[in-house]
Amino acid sequence: MSDVLAFVDANLGRFRSELYDFLRIQSISAVQEHEGDMRRAAEWLADRMRDAGLKASIHETPGHPVVLGEWRGAGDDAPTVLIYGHYDVQPPEPLDEWISPPFEPTERNGKVFARGSADDKGQLYMHVKAIEAHMKAAGKLPVNVILLAEGEEEVGSENLVPFVKEHADRLACDHVVISDSNMFDEGLPSILFSLRGLAYFEIHVKGARSDLHSGQFGGTVTNPGNALSQIIASLHDADGKVAVEGFYDDVAVWDADVLEGIRNLPFDEEEYRKSLEVPALGGEKGYSALERLWVRPTCDVNGILCGYTGEGAKTVLPGKAMAKVSFRLVPDQSPEKVKELVEAHVRKVAPKGVTVDIEPLHGGRPWRTRPQGTLVEAASKALEEAFGVRPVLQGEGGSIPIVVDFEEQLNASALLVGFALPGCNLHAPNEWFELEAYEKGIRALCMLYENLGAGAAG
Amino acid sequence: MSDVLAFVDANLGRFRSELYDFLRIQSISAVQEHEGDMRRAAEWLADRMRDAGLKASIHETPGHPVVLGEWRGAGDDAPTVLIYGHYDVQPPEPLDEWISPPFEPTERNGKVFARGSADDKGQLYMHVKAIEAHMKAAGKLPVNVILLAEGEEEVGSENLVPFVKEHADRLACDHVVISDSNMFDEGLPSILFSLRGLAYFEIHVKGARSDLHSGQFGGTVTNPGNALSQIIASLHDADGKVAVEGFYDDVAVWDADVLEGIRNLPFDEEEYRKSLEVPALGGEKGYSALERLWVRPTCDVNGILCGYTGEGAKTVLPGKAMAKVSFRLVPDQSPEKVKELVEAHVRKVAPKGVTVDIEPLHGGRPWRTRPQGTLVEAASKALEEAFGVRPVLQGEGGSIPIVVDFEEQLNASALLVGFALPGCNLHAPNEWFELEAYEKGIRALCMLYENLGAGAAG
Repeated sequence: MSDVLAFVDANLGRFRSELYDFLRIQSISAVQEHEGDMRRAAEWLADRMRDAGLKASIHETPGHPVVLGEWRGAGDDAPTVLIYGHYDVQPPEPLDEWISPPFEPTERNGKVFARGSADDKGQLYMHVKAIEAHMKAAGKLPVNVILLAEGEEEVGSENLVPFVKEHADRLACDHVVISDSNMFDEGLPSILFSLRGLAYFEIHVKGARSDLHSGQFGGTVTNPGNALSQIIASLHDADGKVAVEGFYDDVAVWDADVLEGIRNLPFDEEEYRKSLEVPALGGEKGYSALERLWVRPTCDVNGILCGYTGEGAKTVLPGKAMAKVSFRLVPDQSPEKVKELVEAHVRKVAPKGVTVDIEPLHGGRPWRTRPQGTLVEAASKALEEAFGVRPVLQGEGGSIPIVVDFEEQLNASALLVGFALPGCNLHAPNEWFELEAYEKGIRALCMLYENLGAGAAG
Repeated sequence: MSDVLAFVDANLGRFRSELYDFLRIQSISAVQEHEGDMRRAAEWLADRMRDAGLKASIHETPGHPVVLGEWRGAGDDAPTVLIYGHYDVQPPEPLDEWISPPFEPTERNGKVFARGSADDKGQLYMHVKAIEAHMKAAGKLPVNVILLAEGEEEVGSENLVPFVKEHADRLACDHVVISDSNMFDEGLPSILFSLRGLAYFEIHVKGARSDLHSGQFGGTVTNPGNALSQIIASLHDADGKVAVEGFYDDVAVWDADVLEGIRNLPFDEEEYRKSLEVPALGGEKGYSALERLWVRPTCDVNGILCGYTGEGAKTVLPGKAMAKVSFRLVPDQSPEKVKELVEAHVRKVAPKGVTVDIEPLHGGRPWRTRPQGTLVEAASKALEEAFGVRPVLQGEGGSIPIVVDFEEQLNASALLVGFALPGCNLHAPNEWFELEAYEKGIRALCMLYENLGAGAAG
């Protein structure tokens, strides 16, 4: 193992410059004109997988290709690890807010600034380099490896689940490892114990046959804008709890040590409040901000549109109103059941002078892992050795629906360990990745594979 | 008087064709390129006033000109009547919904279809013709007359109050007569006993420094869209009453006979509901639809805008939200006091995690007349003789702020008597005016002047 880590140390400069080559490719999956760049990124990545000692292949999908790297030399007794990442990036706009060009990696203050540096090319490439270190220094890996990189994460991954289903035998594995998330803080690595799910709706309220004059009709009909506001307001009680009957029935109660862990994290709510520039934090009473973010579900308006929204005073009584409202779900809530509960709630509270339709737009299941499992333990040890500090367990307020699909389709358990830092401007101008995290992270991944292989043997 | 009415009867064909000439002029005050048409309409109108025997003049304003017609030959003992109307019209768009061209008056089923036929050229021109009948048949009018026609009613009349103030001596009068409203129904003329006022606000709710990711922040901050919905919902109680403290304190209690009059009007709420295509009527409990429309104030959303309103599911936690909310006021509420009450209410209910600003956009005072006054009685008699049926008293849900200004500036009392019919497509394609109402209305106005003159003598 010391040879492997020595190889990493000796090659850090090259690992860095190769990443910069990767970041220079404008692999923007959302933009048609970058289709050639997407192809070039896939081929570049396949070539680097081959350099690292993997057997690489490019698989067509109805959208952008999937790149697969494989090495199965550890034998049937060793576990198989599927590593998932994505080589596509968000569009860089607005361009004029970038201090250095988004596709010209630039180092400042120990960080590299470039689109995709954190999300997810940098983190994906760390795995390629950790694999190379094992293969070059030891001639083998402690585990069988399948490295799966998709090109459509930023546009909804719609071809990924079909791909996984179609190749379920080839992708069969014991563990799924994903590095597409944050450390808790600078120098403080973390492992995710949960992801929230999502239930997203559009609510349409219809009043009279058309917009009406608010003077000539006001007072005789129910105003769809007022009715919609009433419906949205009814979704919360005075304590900030979601007031939909049955909504909390399936909310998992976490072990005391997980909750204790959250309480012990170095997190200053006042600093957080200031950073968001709000007069006070909000949300459900009786829980800390991190609890509200990770282990409690939410209900948020994402958009509302009704009537006249231009300049000045138009005295219109609108004929209709629309809101986008979504719920972040926690284990063990399901988007299907929440849909039924919300529909029943809205039917109950809607004024009788209007017609209300609810259209479900998007759903994703929440995910959780066993915080005491061997997978988490293997990662904890590796991170502690690499970073010199015991990693923390943390939740994630966002959703990665594919994680649950991987677990179900492949009958495997997932490990989410990420190396970006909070505030790294994900999906925003001046995205950055800390170079120390990049380098220590590669060492951590080397040790993670080792631990996973040893865990199986031991 | 019989000579005057005989003159009307003998000239009805000409009165109609002259109106059609007036309607052919595209006097659209809102559209810059029709400035020449506005001027042409003012000059055409001044010429017809002269033909009728008035001394006519055109007065420049910072906007479109005011046309003034005067005759003061009835002497100091006779009352002076100021007649107000407007020669500008709404834009005709959407053009493809007009069955016949908007500026080519076309008769169908006893109606003339044209932009401005009802609002207000047709009703204004009825006064010109009633004046002409007196002058030509009797050589004089029973009252002194000032006919004031403005060209900016459809764009907010912003130069009218300054004009009235500047010319207060010249415009001094006993009564102001306005024909710019509806009869209650076909064959059933009416006199207005009230107009509602208006207090119009924009409410701005500000949350975090920018839009946030609803997963990565949802649950920790107050969502401006949810907060705005809560504020709007708090404006009504469960009975549909406005829940702003003190809001009803100044609401006038009408005499029992006015309320009785409303109850006795031929109005079918079920037909009304069907015509609006709503599952049920809405509004304040305990009042009929006509009461809610005329003698009760309202609170209506005019527009809401928040977050993402395009296609699909964007998981944004919006940084701000905006609503346009307006109150229709009834006598003796004032927009200034309602503004204070609403501001106090919103301060009280706004969640502390957001900043709320209220911007008053527009205000207008409600108006009411004495239903038993000599003015109403003079009009009632005239309408009854012309239409063969006793007119009804009705309220008006909309607002004409200038009425209160006229009364105050000129220390006069206003009479609102209109001849358009409900459903005449005001401000919409296929505006129409009933020819029978045009002709009977001219006779009614002839008798109204007579009654006003006699009232002063008697």
